[in-house]
Amino acid sequence: GAGADNDLYINQAVVFIEDAIQYRSINHRVDSRSLGLYRWYYSRTCQWILSLTITVILALAFIEQPSSLTVTSDARYRPPAWNPPCGLTESIELLCFLVFVVDVAVKSYLVGWEEFWKNKWLMAYIVTLVVSLTDWMVSLSFFCMEDVRIRRILRPFFLLQNSSMMKKTLKSINSTLPEMASVVLLLALHLSLFTMFAMLLFARTKDGQQDKEWVRYFRNLPDSLTSLLVLLTTANNPDVMIPAYSKNRAYSLFFILFTVLGNLFLMNLLTAIIYNQFRGYLLKSVQSSLFRRRLGIRAAFEVLSSLKETPASAQESYVSVGALLQVLQKVDMDSRCKQAITRSIRMCSCDQLSATQFQKLFEELDKDAIMQHPPSPEYQSHFMQKVQFAFGHPYFGYLGNVVALANIISICVVLVMDADKQPSERDDFFLGAINCFFILYYLLEMLLKVLAMGLQRYLSYPSNRFDGLLTVILLVLEISTFAVYGFPHPGWRPEFMGLLSLWDMVRLVNMFIVFRFLRIIPNMKFMALVVTTLLDLVKNLRAFAGILVVVFYAFAITGIMLFKGAVVPLGNTSKKAVVLCVKEKSDFIALFGYFQAHVIYCLLYLLSLLTVHLICRWAKIYFVAWWLISSVIWVNLFIALLLENFIHKWDRRCHRESLSDIEYQRTVELMFRDVLEEPTEEELMEKLHQHPHLQLCR
Amino acid sequence: GAGADNDLYINQAVVFIEDAIQYRSINHRVDSRSLGLYRWYYSRTCQWILSLTITVILALAFIEQPSSLTVTSDARYRPPAWNPPCGLTESIELLCFLVFVVDVAVKSYLVGWEEFWKNKWLMAYIVTLVVSLTDWMVSLSFFCMEDVRIRRILRPFFLLQNSSMMKKTLKSINSTLPEMASVVLLLALHLSLFTMFAMLLFARTKDGQQDKEWVRYFRNLPDSLTSLLVLLTTANNPDVMIPAYSKNRAYSLFFILFTVLGNLFLMNLLTAIIYNQFRGYLLKSVQSSLFRRRLGIRAAFEVLSSLKETPASAQESYVSVGALLQVLQKVDMDSRCKQAITRSIRMCSCDQLSATQFQKLFEELDKDAIMQHPPSPEYQSHFMQKVQFAFGHPYFGYLGNVVALANIISICVVLVMDADKQPSERDDFFLGAINCFFILYYLLEMLLKVLAMGLQRYLSYPSNRFDGLLTVILLVLEISTFAVYGFPHPGWRPEFMGLLSLWDMVRLVNMFIVFRFLRIIPNMKFMALVVTTLLDLVKNLRAFAGILVVVFYAFAITGIMLFKGAVVPLGNTSKKAVVLCVKEKSDFIALFGYFQAHVIYCLLYLLSLLTVHLICRWAKIYFVAWWLISSVIWVNLFIALLLENFIHKWDRRCHRESLSDIEYQRTVELMFRDVLEEPTEEELMEKLHQHPHLQLCR
Repeated sequence: GAGADNDLYINQAVVFIEDAIQYRSINHRVDSRSLGLYRWYYSRTCQWILSLTITVILALAFIEQPSSLTVTSDARYRPPAWNPPCGLTESIELLCFLVFVVDVAVKSYLVGWEEFWKNKWLMAYIVTLVVSLTDWMVSLSFFCMEDVRIRRILRPFFLLQNSSMMKKTLKSINSTLPEMASVVLLLALHLSLFTMFAMLLFARTKDGQQDKEWVRYFRNLPDSLTSLLVLLTTANNPDVMIPAYSKNRAYSLFFILFTVLGNLFLMNLLTAIIYNQFRGYLLKSVQSSLFRRRLGIRAAFEVLSSLKETPASAQESYVSVGALLQVLQKVDMDSRCKQAITRSIRMCSCDQLSATQFQKLFEELDKDAIMQHPPSPEYQSHFMQKVQFAFGHPYFGYLGNVVALANIISICVVLVMDADKQPSERDDFFLGAINCFFILYYLLEMLLKVLAMGLQRYLSYPSNRFDGLLTVILLVLEISTFAVYGFPHPGWRPEFMGLLSLWDMVRLVNMFIVFRFLRIIPNMKFMALVVTTLLDLVKNLRAFAGILVVVFYAFAITGIMLFKGAVVPLGNTSKKAVVLCVKEKSDFIALFGYFQAHVIYCLLYLLSLLTVHLICRWAKIYFVAWWLISSVIWVNLFIALLLENFIHKWDRRCHRESLSDIEYQRTVELMFRDVLEEPTEEELMEKLHQHPHLQLCR
Repeated sequence: GAGADNDLYINQAVVFIEDAIQYRSINHRVDSRSLGLYRWYYSRTCQWILSLTITVILALAFIEQPSSLTVTSDARYRPPAWNPPCGLTESIELLCFLVFVVDVAVKSYLVGWEEFWKNKWLMAYIVTLVVSLTDWMVSLSFFCMEDVRIRRILRPFFLLQNSSMMKKTLKSINSTLPEMASVVLLLALHLSLFTMFAMLLFARTKDGQQDKEWVRYFRNLPDSLTSLLVLLTTANNPDVMIPAYSKNRAYSLFFILFTVLGNLFLMNLLTAIIYNQFRGYLLKSVQSSLFRRRLGIRAAFEVLSSLKETPASAQESYVSVGALLQVLQKVDMDSRCKQAITRSIRMCSCDQLSATQFQKLFEELDKDAIMQHPPSPEYQSHFMQKVQFAFGHPYFGYLGNVVALANIISICVVLVMDADKQPSERDDFFLGAINCFFILYYLLEMLLKVLAMGLQRYLSYPSNRFDGLLTVILLVLEISTFAVYGFPHPGWRPEFMGLLSLWDMVRLVNMFIVFRFLRIIPNMKFMALVVTTLLDLVKNLRAFAGILVVVFYAFAITGIMLFKGAVVPLGNTSKKAVVLCVKEKSDFIALFGYFQAHVIYCLLYLLSLLTVHLICRWAKIYFVAWWLISSVIWVNLFIALLLENFIHKWDRRCHRESLSDIEYQRTVELMFRDVLEEPTEEELMEKLHQHPHLQLCR
C-alpha cells in the first residue's frame, strides 16, 4: 500500500543519508528487508564485533608456536616460550573465520549479484577465506605439526579489506607503482653498472698484499653487489672504501660518484616522484569521497520527492519539510549536526525544499566543528573577582611554565651531580624535598585555575586536561611515597619497601615531571603549528599505518617461516650475526616499527660479512625487499604526506592569521576543501540512474 | 658638444644592454671614463684573471704546511708531505691580495660613494682584505711559524663575493634560517627532554650486572646527549638499544619513540619547511633577475630617446632605429640573439621605436635556443640512398644497443667465471678476442652512421658525440694493446710490457665499454626525463655547490687548526679512532664531497666510544656543526631543489608531450617562466629615477 511505500521511501532516505555521512557507496539493495539488514550490518555493535575479530586473528601470532613474546630478547637468557596446545589457537581461528564468512555473505548479498562480479575485493575476500579454511583443515589433519601455514600470511588481508580508506590508499600507491618501478629499475641499472666497474677496478692482483679491497668486498659478483647495495643504504659507508682509499686516494672518487648518484640523486628522485604522484591521487580520492556524499544526499532527496504526499507539481521535484524531519529523527548522526540542520529547517520556514536547498541543508556535515569553551563562573564577592582575574590571566600560566622549567633544571642539576656517585652514596633527601615542593605548587596552580575558570571551562582546554591529569598522577605517586617511606629528611635513605624502591619512585615522579614540561608547547607559536601539523598527520596517517601493519605482518610471518631454526653453530662473529639475524625475525611482531628499517641496515651489513651462504642467500633477498618496502617506499610516502600537510597548513596560517583563536577539527577532507570541485547535477543524476537496485520514478 | 653627448648616450645604452643581458644592476657611474672602466672591468680577460686569482688562493691550502696531498691516505705509509719554504706561498698570496685590492677599488669607484655605504658586501670585502693583509704581515714577521692563520678561514669569502648567483642563494638560505632555527630548537628540546628521560630510565642500579646500558651509553649528561644525538644520525642505531632491549623488550619503546619523533617527524619537517620556504625565495630571486633585465633595457631606451637627433615630438618618447643598430653593433652579446634582433628590426620597417616595441625586440634574450640539426647529405647514387636509409634508421641504433648489451653480458660472464681463479691461471685470450670483435663492430657502426648522416649532423647529437668519443678511445687502446702485446691467440699470457700489463689494458677497455653502455639512456623515455632533470639540476646547483665549497673550505681549515698534531699515543681502539679522526680532517680538502657527511656519522659514533675528553669535547661540537650544516641542511636544500625541478619538469612534460623533439636549453630563469610577472612601466620608471648617477631629461 501507499503507507508501506512511504515507509520504504523514508527508510531508503535514512540509509542514503547515513551512507552520505560515512562516505559509503549507495550501490546496495534498497528493499525493506535488505535495508534492515544493511543498517544492522553497519550498526556499531556489528562493526565492533568485526574489528574485534580482526584484532584477535592478527594477535594470534603472538601466542602461536614460533613466537618470542618474552620479556628479554636475548636468546641465551630467554625461557622457552609458552606453547599453546594443538587446537586452542585453531579453534579461535575457526570462530574468526566463521565471523568472516557471515561478513562476506552479508556484504555480497547487500551489493547484489551484478555488483558482486565487479567487486574484486569481495571475490578476493572469498578466495582468501576458502584458502584459509582449507589450510586450517590441513593443519588440523597434521595435528598442528605442518611447517608451512599459508593462512598466516593471508591474515592481514582481513584488516585491509575492512577499511575503505586503506583500500583507497592502496589504490593510490598502486597507481604510483609504475613510476616507482622506473626509478627502482634505474637504481638497479646504476647498481649493476657500478658493480661491473668495481669488479674491474678492484680486481685480484698478482701481488697478494695489495688487494685487500678485493678480498673483503669485491671477491665475486654476489659479494660486490651486496657491498654496493649496502653502500646504498649507507650502512657500511666509510668501511667499504677504507682499504682502497688507503692505497690511493683517487679510488674514493668511485665511491663518491656512486653515493652521489645513488643516494643523493636517485633516492631523492624517488621522493620527488612519490610526492608528485601521490599529491594528485590523495586529492582525487578526497574528491571521490565528496562525490559519494553528494550522491547519497541527492539519492535521499529523490526517494523523498517520490513520496505520495508530495504534490507532483511542476517539472521540478520537491521534498516536504515534514518528511525530512521524520527522516532526520531516524538518522544516526552527530547530534551537533542534527541540531544545526533542524535549526536551519525551522529558520527557512518553508514547506517545500528544492534539490539545491536540500543539498545546502546537509552542507553542515562538511563544516568544521567550532569548539566553544563554557563561560567562567561569575563570582559576587569583589575579592573573588580579583582572585579570578589574577589566576585566570595568561601570566599565571606563564609563571607555571617558568616553575616547570625551574623544576626541570633542578632535576638536571641533581642528575649531573649524582652521575658518578655510587648508588649507596646517593642522598635522596634533596631530590625528594624538591619534588615535594614543586608538586605542591602544581597542585596549588591546578586548584587556583579551577577556581578562576570553573571546572568545566578548565577541562575544555586540552592543555589543562594534560596538566591536570599529570598533576593528579604526581600527587598520587608522592602521597604513596610518603605513605611507604615517610617524609624526607637529611640522610633519607630507607630500605626497599613495597613495589618500588624510593629511588625508583623518585625517578618515576621525575619522569612525569619531564613529561609535564611539554605543556609549554602551545605557548610557542611555531611549535604549536608544528605540533598541530604532526597531530593532523597522525590522523591522516591511519590508513598508511594500517597498510604498514599489513606489510609488517606479512614480512614477519614470512621471516619466521624462512628462518625457522636457522641458528647454526659457527665461528664466533658469524654466530653472533646469525643469532642477531634470527632473533631479529622473531621480534618483528613485537616491535612493529620504523625502527626495524635501521636494524635491517645494520643486519644487511653484518650479513655481508657472513660466509654462511645457505641462509644468507635467502636472507639477502628478504632483507633487500624489506628495506625497499619499509624504508625506502614507506618513508617516502610519509615525507610526501608530511610535505602536503605542512604546506597546506602553512599557506592556511598565512591566510587566516586572525582566526587563530578558533580551534578547528581537521580531517583529510577539510584540508583540500579549497581545491575540491562540487559535482554537477547532471553527474549526480547520471550516477543515480545507474544505480543497480533503485528505480527512480522519472 | 652634441656629438660627444651622443657618443656618451650610445655608450650608456651599450652598457645598460650588456647589464640587462648579464642580469647586472645598472646602479653604476655613467660618465664616459667610468663606462670605459666598467666595460674593461667586466671584460672577459679581467673576469678571467679574477677567477684565476680566486682559484689560486683557494688552491694554496693544498700545498701549504699542514696539508696531506699524498697518494695514500694512511698516516702510517704516507711519506712526509712537501713543505714549501717560508715566503713562497706568502708571496703568491700577496699577489692575489693585490688583485683583490684593485678589484675592490674598481668596484667601489664604479658604484659611487653613496651606493658604497649601502653595499654591505663591498664593505665586508674591504674588511676581509684588511684583516687578511694584517694577518699576512704578522705571519711574515713570525717567519711563518705562527699557529693561527685567520686569513685562511677568510679565503672562501673571495669566492662568495664574486658570484651574484651565490650571493642571491645565500640570501635565500638566510631568509629560511628563522624557520630552520625553530625546527633545530625543537630538535634540541626533543633531544634534551629525551636525554633527561634516558638518564632517569637507565640509571645506575645497585646490582652492577644489570646496568650495561648505563655504563656504555648513559653514564653522565654529555655521554647521554652524545648517544642520543648519534642515534638521531642513525649511526649507532641498533647498538645503542641492544643492552636495554636484551634486558626488557619494553625499553625499545623509548628508542622507537625517540627515533620516530626525531628522525621521522622532526627531520622530515625540516625538509618540508626548507622546501616550502625555499620554493618561494627561488622564484623571488628569479623575479628580481627579470626586473634587472627589463630595467637595463628600459634604461637603454631612455638614454637613446634623449639623443639629439631624435625629434622631441609628443609626450611619448621614441628611439630611432639607426641609433639602436649602432648600439647593437657595439654590444657584446650572443651572436644568435644579435642576428634575431637585427632581423626583427629590419622586418618591422619603421623609423621609430616606442618603449614597448623596444622592450619587445629584446625579449629574444629570454627565449630558449632551439637546436637545429644540420641536414643529412644527399647522395646521387641509388645504392648510397639505400645505405643511407638503412643506417640512418632508428633500428640501426637499437641494434647497436643490443650489441652493447651483449658485450656487457659477455664481460659479466667472463668476470664471474674468472672470479675465483688465481691471476696466473687466467687466460686473457677469450676476453681479448671478444673485445676485439666488439670494438670492430663499434667502429663500423660509427663509420656507417657518419656515412648516412654526414659528419656534421652526426656530431650535432650529444649521444653520437658520446658514442664516437668512446669508440675512438677504445680503438686507440685496442691498437696500442696489439702494438705492445701482439694479436690474441689461445694461451695469450704475455709478460708485462710498457706502461700497463695486458690485464690492466683489458680491464681499462672493459671499463670504457661499461661506460659506453650508458648510450641506451636516451632510448628509454622515463630515463631520459630523469637524466635531463638531473642535468638541469646540476646547472641550477652551481650556486649551491659554490656555497658548499665555501662551507667545506672553512670547515676544513678550522679542522686543521683545531686538531693539529692531535695524535696522542693511547690504547689501541682509541688510538685508531683518533688517528681516523685526525686523518679525516686533513682529507677534507682532498675529498670535498657529500661522502664526508657519512664519514662524519661514523666518526661521531667512534668518538662516542672515546674517552679522550680533551680532543673530543671540541671534536664533538665541530662534528655536530658539520653534520647539521653539510648533511641536514644541505641535503634538504638539495631535496627542495630537486622536488622543485622535477615537479616543474613533470608538469611541463604532460603539457607539451608533442614538442619533445625540440631540445631546449633550460636555465633556472626559464623554469619559472610561466609564473613570472612582468614589471610594470611605473615600477621601471620609478626605479630609473632613483638611479644615483643617471639624470634623465624628463
